Amino acid sequence: MLTYSFSERKGESLYEYLYSRIKEDILSGRLKAGEKLPSKRSLAENLSISTITVETAYSQLVAEGYIYSRARSGFFVAEIGERLSAATGKKSTVISEICTEEGRYVADLTANYTAKESFPFLTWSRLMRETLSEQCEELLISSPSQGIYELRKAIADYLFQFRGISVSPDRIIVGAGTEYLYGIIIQLLGRDKRYALEDPGYGKIGRIYSANGAPGVHIPYEKDCVDLDALYKSGADVLHISPSHHFPTGGVTPIGKRYELLSWAKKINGYIIEDDYDSEFRLSGRPVPPLQSIDSEGRVIYINTFSKSLTPTIRISYAVLPCELSEKYRRELGFYSCTVSTFEQTTLARFIERGCFEKHLNRMRTLYRARRDALLQCIKKHPHYDRVKIKEADSGLHFILEIATDLSDSELKIRAKEKGIKISCLSDYYYGEKADSQHKIVINYSSLSEKNTEEAVERLFEII
Amino acid sequence: MLTYSFSERKGESLYEYLYSRIKEDILSGRLKAGEKLPSKRSLAENLSISTITVETAYSQLVAEGYIYSRARSGFFVAEIGERLSAATGKKSTVISEICTEEGRYVADLTANYTAKESFPFLTWSRLMRETLSEQCEELLISSPSQGIYELRKAIADYLFQFRGISVSPDRIIVGAGTEYLYGIIIQLLGRDKRYALEDPGYGKIGRIYSANGAPGVHIPYEKDCVDLDALYKSGADVLHISPSHHFPTGGVTPIGKRYELLSWAKKINGYIIEDDYDSEFRLSGRPVPPLQSIDSEGRVIYINTFSKSLTPTIRISYAVLPCELSEKYRRELGFYSCTVSTFEQTTLARFIERGCFEKHLNRMRTLYRARRDALLQCIKKHPHYDRVKIKEADSGLHFILEIATDLSDSELKIRAKEKGIKISCLSDYYYGEKADSQHKIVINYSSLSEKNTEEAVERLFEII
Repeated sequence: MLTYSFSERKGESLYEYLYSRIKEDILSGRLKAGEKLPSKRSLAENLSISTITVETAYSQLVAEGYIYSRARSGFFVAEIGERLSAATGKKSTVISEICTEEGRYVADLTANYTAKESFPFLTWSRLMRETLSEQCEELLISSPSQGIYELRKAIADYLFQFRGISVSPDRIIVGAGTEYLYGIIIQLLGRDKRYALEDPGYGKIGRIYSANGAPGVHIPYEKDCVDLDALYKSGADVLHISPSHHFPTGGVTPIGKRYELLSWAKKINGYIIEDDYDSEFRLSGRPVPPLQSIDSEGRVIYINTFSKSLTPTIRISYAVLPCELSEKYRRELGFYSCTVSTFEQTTLARFIERGCFEKHLNRMRTLYRARRDALLQCIKKHPHYDRVKIKEADSGLHFILEIATDLSDSELKIRAKEKGIKISCLSDYYYGEKADSQHKIVINYSSLSEKNTEEAVERLFEII
Repeated sequence: MLTYSFSERKGESLYEYLYSRIKEDILSGRLKAGEKLPSKRSLAENLSISTITVETAYSQLVAEGYIYSRARSGFFVAEIGERLSAATGKKSTVISEICTEEGRYVADLTANYTAKESFPFLTWSRLMRETLSEQCEELLISSPSQGIYELRKAIADYLFQFRGISVSPDRIIVGAGTEYLYGIIIQLLGRDKRYALEDPGYGKIGRIYSANGAPGVHIPYEKDCVDLDALYKSGADVLHISPSHHFPTGGVTPIGKRYELLSWAKKINGYIIEDDYDSEFRLSGRPVPPLQSIDSEGRVIYINTFSKSLTPTIRISYAVLPCELSEKYRRELGFYSCTVSTFEQTTLARFIERGCFEKHLNRMRTLYRARRDALLQCIKKHPHYDRVKIKEADSGLHFILEIATDLSDSELKIRAKEKGIKISCLSDYYYGEKADSQHKIVINYSSLSEKNTEEAVERLFEII
């Protein structure tokens, strides 16, 4: 049985320490390829740590390819030797693999992935099996560039029922993730256009625009909307926003300002990219209608994804284009193959058509509401509750925790990391100069389970 | 029972005619939403046409969303009314849907999709089910940007065994189709580079480079390689080629010229993108080693896809990057999410690991060889065989049929279309001026079934 002394552990979390020890033993050859690792439970007992700690360490090792799991028989050491020797750049290889992985924390409050235990595997598996056994012929016909009709029809029906968006399926484009669709939209509108992004905002969006040769200009986001004066002055042609739930502030743009944004787009003959990424999870209050649904001028490109509502690991997103642009797409970019597997497109179409998606969303809303409430309660009953303020907790899967502290945001993050908690601060999401003393933590709670909520809150308060 | 008089049929094929009549009846409301269509067999009997004709018409209608199929109960009329009324741009909607679809021919010799009946649905379905039931937890962890390790490892092992390419998994990038990967490579190498493309070549590649803001320069392809002098003079930094099976000529670049290409890349410090799209289907003779496997300078980006070898409808391709570029990828583009579903990545990894992929390839090689042989035999035993020449029939899934005729290539294509045969000519694939009198038909035979081979050949000879 593997035995490690945890006394050598320094700043690392239990999980991280265990992960590192096993990894070292694999790299040094003490654990050999094919060797079976102890079961999570028995290792946990042996080391007097929780099963969850072992599980997290194992998951990380699996994700990085050091070990693999085999159904009903457990975890085994992967052939790491081959991997090391196959490459010329030996060491750097493995290191770089590791750098791209994430998640070795007790609680990761920066991750906005979906709750692990809540993907409807059984239903999905049944529908996939059904699809594969019944639709053999159609499944091998290449999907139209925009995605199969059945899926676009299902999405159109869903949008009509739940978001008040009335759109014909021929204006929908299905693609492998919103990141891919951003690239397509840049190709469609042109690199010569000036794209405006919210500041603060989701940093990845800026990187995608840059990588696609269309670096964005940044417009200050204030309270609940981008600054309209700054927008007019920016000379932008296209504005990329998330009016229903701004990331990271959580702001919701009120209806009046939505009309002002539309009138900006109309005046300059530009476009608004409405990124509605987690609108399914408005947990209380009445939803504000999407810009797309109140746009009479064909100025809004609506984008949404199944990453938040289903799982980010099936890569299915979609864009709703104004008429004019959907025709332009077919004319200029219709040569592209659809990037989503027909198998999964068909399965998802059935999943939506048969009401499974709606049911799933309801279940998830309940789950996330419970998570949020448990977390808020934990925070509120804490003796030092007077030192924090909770903001924008009603929609989407994150809120802001403002704390009274003398620490800088960087110090906050370092301390949290030492406690095994990964956090990000509002200041991380500014493109320009960052005020490093806002003390606003962005709390993504969707991946926080009942088990670690209390511990996470306890540790959070410890650092302030 | 639906009854149509085929006497009104003009230039259309039987299939196309039937398709149009049913579509009209749906659009006019004579066939109502939800109404069951007659079975393929009974409609075929009623109209005295072949079941295949009905099948093709139905497939097309399904693809376009006019009808849908339900397992074990048949075909039904879709709710087309909704679809028409949901859009503002009523008519154009449906028309544009139709324009993006393809394939209403008795034989489509331009299509290089995989044989419909030959996807291993049972095995795939079993592995997918297994994946979904066993790997629940890991499946919801976001795939690393480059793809999950298991799949990259499986691909690396496959490449080593079957293509003599030795590469560590960390240099592999999995993406949703080669088209997506071309875009990523442009982002990686930069839009300021000059990209050289083969002329003639696969037109889509040129369109993708242009859409990504890096329009290519065209280098004449002569016999079995791009013209090296022209390449040097072009000032290109990057050369995109398919040395193992050029499209559309079918040329295979011999080893000597491969070394010359590599030395070009070394001299100018540039890169070669080796698009090995159907190398699995060399049907006779010894394979020439891929450029990647003889590149000692890290100048080759190798790209391949499962579109040809498995099915284009699961979108999985991969690129093998030189060390330096794979590090650059992680540094500059590693923020991208992988575009392929983890479910399908995992399933494919198992499919390869367990030898199913190899078995499948062998089966497909046998099938395609039989198709090619049947087609060649049909051509050779035709009374007018003296009027044609067959070229480059040994590798990949297409060959060239040179015919003696006074017709221009455009006339050839129109006549073939009238006969229900879709063909393309070599002259279609030139970027610059096209010599419209080469009389070289590009025959993609992978989708040609036993049933329609004879008819297709008969019709082909009729037009010349």
